[in-house]
Amino acid sequence: MLFTIATIKAKAGSEAEFEAAAQELAKAVNANEPGCLQYVLCKGEEPSTFVFVESYKDAEAVEAHRKSDHFRTLGRAMGAFMDGPPSIQRLTAA
Amino acid sequence: MLFTIATIKAKAGSEAEFEAAAQELAKAVNANEPGCLQYVLCKGEEPSTFVFVESYKDAEAVEAHRKSDHFRTLGRAMGAFMDGPPSIQRLTAA
Repeated sequence: MLFTIATIKAKAGSEAEFEAAAQELAKAVNANEPGCLQYVLCKGEEPSTFVFVESYKDAEAVEAHRKSDHFRTLGRAMGAFMDGPPSIQRLTAA
Repeated sequence: MLFTIATIKAKAGSEAEFEAAAQELAKAVNANEPGCLQYVLCKGEEPSTFVFVESYKDAEAVEAHRKSDHFRTLGRAMGAFMDGPPSIQRLTAA
């Protein structure tokens, strides 16, 4: 099992717009990716900070996520409200 | 739902001992904490780095985890193999 922890800072004043697009992405992932075991949007401790907690069955499922239409389209929509690129931790269940 | 992402660096040469104690803790948590929804030991991308991905039903479940005998006992056992304190991210599902 593979985990991704993706930390994202939203632009100040754009938190609600970011969150709406990010929740739309979470819904699309959970509805369309059988290899994705969880895809949960969280709020972090710091202001304007969001974190996706994601887990996948295997590397193929991660690849299917990255190549999906919803990730490309909604990822672009979220990008407009982000303050810089996401910080990504990639983890492998021990 | 609350998430904890706990990143831990094991002492060089003590990775196997750390991992054994950490897996014992994960087993005890999964067997004894109904409010804990997941408690998975992962390997991070950097050498000697481990990450617990944890989620809990609510704040009471987090508190029950912290106060549990297995967390206190096995946490101490893990501590002997850790290179400094853990780095903790506390997240709340949005």
